Amino acid sequence: MIQLRKLAAAGALGSAVLLAAGPALAQVEAETKFALDTFSFLICGALVMWMAAGFAMLESGLVRSKNTASICLKNIALYSVAGIMFYLVGYNLMYVDVGSYIGTFSIFYDASPAELALIGAEEATPELITAVVDNGYAVMSDWFFQMVFVATAASIVSGTLAERIRVWPFLLFVVVLTAFIYPIQASWVWGGGWLAERGFSDFAGSTLVHSCGGWAALTGAIILGARRGKYGPDGRVNPLPGANLPLATLGTFVLWLGWFGFNGGSQLALGSAADAANMAIVFANTNMAAAGGVVVAMLLTQLLYRKIDLTMALNGAIAGLVSITANPDVPAIWWALLVGGVGGALVVFAVPLLDRLKVDDVVGAVSAHLIAGIWGTFAVALEDGNFGAQILGIVAIGLFVSITSAIVWLALKYTIGIRVSDEEEALGLDRAELGMEAYPEFGTGSQRM
Amino acid sequence: MIQLRKLAAAGALGSAVLLAAGPALAQVEAETKFALDTFSFLICGALVMWMAAGFAMLESGLVRSKNTASICLKNIALYSVAGIMFYLVGYNLMYVDVGSYIGTFSIFYDASPAELALIGAEEATPELITAVVDNGYAVMSDWFFQMVFVATAASIVSGTLAERIRVWPFLLFVVVLTAFIYPIQASWVWGGGWLAERGFSDFAGSTLVHSCGGWAALTGAIILGARRGKYGPDGRVNPLPGANLPLATLGTFVLWLGWFGFNGGSQLALGSAADAANMAIVFANTNMAAAGGVVVAMLLTQLLYRKIDLTMALNGAIAGLVSITANPDVPAIWWALLVGGVGGALVVFAVPLLDRLKVDDVVGAVSAHLIAGIWGTFAVALEDGNFGAQILGIVAIGLFVSITSAIVWLALKYTIGIRVSDEEEALGLDRAELGMEAYPEFGTGSQRM
Amino acid sequence: MIQLRKLAAAGALGSAVLLAAGPALAQVEAETKFALDTFSFLICGALVMWMAAGFAMLESGLVRSKNTASICLKNIALYSVAGIMFYLVGYNLMYVDVGSYIGTFSIFYDASPAELALIGAEEATPELITAVVDNGYAVMSDWFFQMVFVATAASIVSGTLAERIRVWPFLLFVVVLTAFIYPIQASWVWGGGWLAERGFSDFAGSTLVHSCGGWAALTGAIILGARRGKYGPDGRVNPLPGANLPLATLGTFVLWLGWFGFNGGSQLALGSAADAANMAIVFANTNMAAAGGVVVAMLLTQLLYRKIDLTMALNGAIAGLVSITANPDVPAIWWALLVGGVGGALVVFAVPLLDRLKVDDVVGAVSAHLIAGIWGTFAVALEDGNFGAQILGIVAIGLFVSITSAIVWLALKYTIGIRVSDEEEALGLDRAELGMEAYPEFGTGSQRM
Repeated sequence: MIQLRKLAAAGALGSAVLLAAGPALAQVEAETKFALDTFSFLICGALVMWMAAGFAMLESGLVRSKNTASICLKNIALYSVAGIMFYLVGYNLMYVDVGSYIGTFSIFYDASPAELALIGAEEATPELITAVVDNGYAVMSDWFFQMVFVATAASIVSGTLAERIRVWPFLLFVVVLTAFIYPIQASWVWGGGWLAERGFSDFAGSTLVHSCGGWAALTGAIILGARRGKYGPDGRVNPLPGANLPLATLGTFVLWLGWFGFNGGSQLALGSAADAANMAIVFANTNMAAAGGVVVAMLLTQLLYRKIDLTMALNGAIAGLVSITANPDVPAIWWALLVGGVGGALVVFAVPLLDRLKVDDVVGAVSAHLIAGIWGTFAVALEDGNFGAQILGIVAIGLFVSITSAIVWLALKYTIGIRVSDEEEALGLDRAELGMEAYPEFGTGSQRM
Repeated sequence: MIQLRKLAAAGALGSAVLLAAGPALAQVEAETKFALDTFSFLICGALVMWMAAGFAMLESGLVRSKNTASICLKNIALYSVAGIMFYLVGYNLMYVDVGSYIGTFSIFYDASPAELALIGAEEATPELITAVVDNGYAVMSDWFFQMVFVATAASIVSGTLAERIRVWPFLLFVVVLTAFIYPIQASWVWGGGWLAERGFSDFAGSTLVHSCGGWAALTGAIILGARRGKYGPDGRVNPLPGANLPLATLGTFVLWLGWFGFNGGSQLALGSAADAANMAIVFANTNMAAAGGVVVAMLLTQLLYRKIDLTMALNGAIAGLVSITANPDVPAIWWALLVGGVGGALVVFAVPLLDRLKVDDVVGAVSAHLIAGIWGTFAVALEDGNFGAQILGIVAIGLFVSITSAIVWLALKYTIGIRVSDEEEALGLDRAELGMEAYPEFGTGSQRM
Repeated sequence: MIQLRKLAAAGALGSAVLLAAGPALAQVEAETKFALDTFSFLICGALVMWMAAGFAMLESGLVRSKNTASICLKNIALYSVAGIMFYLVGYNLMYVDVGSYIGTFSIFYDASPAELALIGAEEATPELITAVVDNGYAVMSDWFFQMVFVATAASIVSGTLAERIRVWPFLLFVVVLTAFIYPIQASWVWGGGWLAERGFSDFAGSTLVHSCGGWAALTGAIILGARRGKYGPDGRVNPLPGANLPLATLGTFVLWLGWFGFNGGSQLALGSAADAANMAIVFANTNMAAAGGVVVAMLLTQLLYRKIDLTMALNGAIAGLVSITANPDVPAIWWALLVGGVGGALVVFAVPLLDRLKVDDVVGAVSAHLIAGIWGTFAVALEDGNFGAQILGIVAIGLFVSITSAIVWLALKYTIGIRVSDEEEALGLDRAELGMEAYPEFGTGSQRM
């Protein structure tokens, strides 16, 4: 077990040195820190937004061509819907007032009055500046950063359920997930709720984002059922290979890049030496966990199947990234490499296991996000010894997300329906729901179906 | 009508607090602010450069496979040409001396003597630093940021005119657009010209960049004529679908990401609390306007056509982004959502309208950039009440760009010619002008033509 | 010859002004500078990581479809392996102790004890902060930035050797390249070794990264041999065109974007006016060298072949970028444009020349990285007059990398073998080594083979 020091409140460290230096200097420094922390949120948030493109490309590459335009649409639509619902409901539910949400209902979340006063002022007086910088970072930069996280959770769901779920019911699920399910469970930790009080630790969301999305996807996959033809009557698993593997590779690289913002930005501050140094550790570990996941997945598929499986290597990268997300500031790269490597191994075993259970996960998202998310969250306890809190958080969030997701999926299933007809599934969702083809000129190759 | 405070001179706010703190402190702070403002220009500028890739992918996905390599070439070439012409002519014309350009002809724009002295100095004396930081940001960072904007205007043109325009005449038009047309009209506002004096407001270029490119594209489309087979003799509109919709989706995501740099960097500064807070508002609003455009375009196509149109959703995102570009620092996300949503609606109606007028816009750029740009620029007046100035700017720039573009297009048409022959168009521009195929192994699918 | 001032130790400039301002102020400023320098490394490093995706897309687009999944796998694998080997061996070899590596063997490179103490402290005392900020930037941010550079060198090799090299032997070569060959030659300059002492100048690695990778690729191509069918018995060169040119275009744009981090981050600091101003120059020049490469390659292919070659234009961009990498802070854009333009011309002549020599370089990487890298390194001497040192560095590193690479390639060839069988090559590496197809539904087009 490694001895590690955690940064309880990273943002608080930087200004300690300023106390002795007089108020004028402290204010200047606070304004610089405000600008740095805000910029860090914005740039890291933009990188996380980019992960939405990564999921879109990963999933576009791993579905068959007849369902490709649909998965593109679902991905850009879910990102849009997630932002709108997080604005209308989710952010307030997560941060502003969890206990008595209805009582303090404030539907629109915008820049603070102090910020608007400073921006609109003829002259920036010290009082105006102090009122703003006391918050630590611009209000909307935090909103933006949190918003892209909720979108990530929703992105995980679309891949698992691809090729047979209807667009609008899927988006209705996204509405509930991003307005209620994600914010409520995230508030338990990042909103300062009961799991945080019990010491549950999840730096950037192995459980709060990735397992959350994974549980919602798993529940959906069970209730929605497998694709036609995926599981033969004799127990055979038919592969139904993805139509465009370079796109899937691109998507994985996009996710890898975006993850630097996902984990790095979760430092929540940049404007002190401690914050900057810890963010650097986060970047290095994030990269190495992914590298570990790739190499282990490659070696294992070579050993097990005598072939290297590209999609396993890609999912190995993602599993490595998910695994380190709960604890990316551990100060030992070899530990990050190990945590990511185990994540890569888990995905190699989880994917066929789910198939044996006839849970049809088109892109392997349950394995890469849920299973690796559980592992990464548990691995925090290997380092800090707090097994009880970690297991409590994994179980509590798993139960909450699964149960609420199941209720929503079942309600949708028995009202408007969630699945296309068999004829539409055979035709492909692109023609059925969109009236178009993703690649009208390509084909007909060896596996067109 | 919302009451909003505009940031007249954003860069001036941050240093007010420093006046009381003594000259030594002020200089330190000014140097930090210089570094932050410069880095903001560079990173945001890199994101805008990335939009060139977004246009390339969007257009690659929306043309037929026989014209795909050509549109790739046009996109990388126009970005290169735009930078070179803006360096040789455009930047000076736009900023340095608008009125008496010939008199003060300075063909090469480079780092300032003060910067070169500081960089080359053995020791950084306070005098050297002061001489540099008085400019507010590094000279070349501003140049870089402005250069990627002119390239964006040129990128808009290539998509509309795809599949029938010849490469070299197109690039000659880009030469004139980026050396003269764009810089002259942009100087009227961002160069402190007559439209700025009348109160015309266009934060990041709904009109100056997007409508400018849109007018040039529209004029070109009219003079160039439609693709063969697009409009049947019986008035029927043939769809000629794009060959690779995941690439178009990727391109839209790239544009969305790049737009954070486009609008966020247009704050022109980062190094004060007011600047950072306003930039955060810009990021959030930019995202939400795009989200509004996507959702409205999806809902409308579902209602109108009983199918969700992916390309409309993509153009809805772009239209939402264009719409908010004139005013992305409005301090109310719901307003951004609304402005973007209207942009998304406009594109759904404008695309078939242009087809009815037999204006053949291959990718919908006129709808998404010109129409939404007009709307976004007009929407500023809904907020600040300055209808006269906004309408004046829209009309003046529309007339100027249309007339000058038409002159250039006509001059090219009647000298070297702008259109490939009918045989070359049927063969595809890739074979005709490049002697290659974009996808030599794919096909022949259902719609190969 | 242009008179230019070089920034010998860029990081040292910013703090000079602080000496007179008292220790408390200096410490605050040093902490801000530390945060800025660290953030610059992290963001620029993330952009360089993104270049790995660029190489993956470029190469995916330029190989035939039957070898596409393999090249995707090689790219994500080499990036992972490079990071791991640089962590285990390379970084220490390059920086920590070059002369007596074995004696001071420290296998794991991690955050400094001072950083861990500051991060873990209850309170950030001035002493703790000073201990950290004295390093100038966070230790792991430098590690991360250097790591992505070694991965770039390895990426160059995969493209040249595509379509016939086996996965595992290729990765074993990457192990040696990234653990030993790259770090040793890089230590001669960036580690303060003998070439640095002789005045050899290579700002961001025209020779140290790009020629290094190019020599390794060239040696490998000679030892591995050409693809079957590439060179006819009658001396005819068969083109074997790439399967997906939009992906190749995307990859080039990704590289272009990433190069801003590659060259810009090589300023190694951001937190002073001199550093920020020089970084701005680097961004502008990097862009313009690429633009020059594109335009020259287009014009030349039009003149020579009466067709514009898209892949030449793409390689022109890359050659322009490689060319300016040795000297991107030259304070004259027109010089960058010229250097990049010559790079673009070289690639147009080098690609057919290599074919005449029957050196089969699938993507043109030897021309774009090695030849342009030599030119760019030599061009430094055109500016600073130091011809002897530049030629010495080019020759010494060329000999070292070629010889060591040849030894490794030959050792691999005569032990485990490096090339697939003729049957596997005809079948395609995807089916042979991965058991999958990159595009199972596409084809069969005009050139499927």
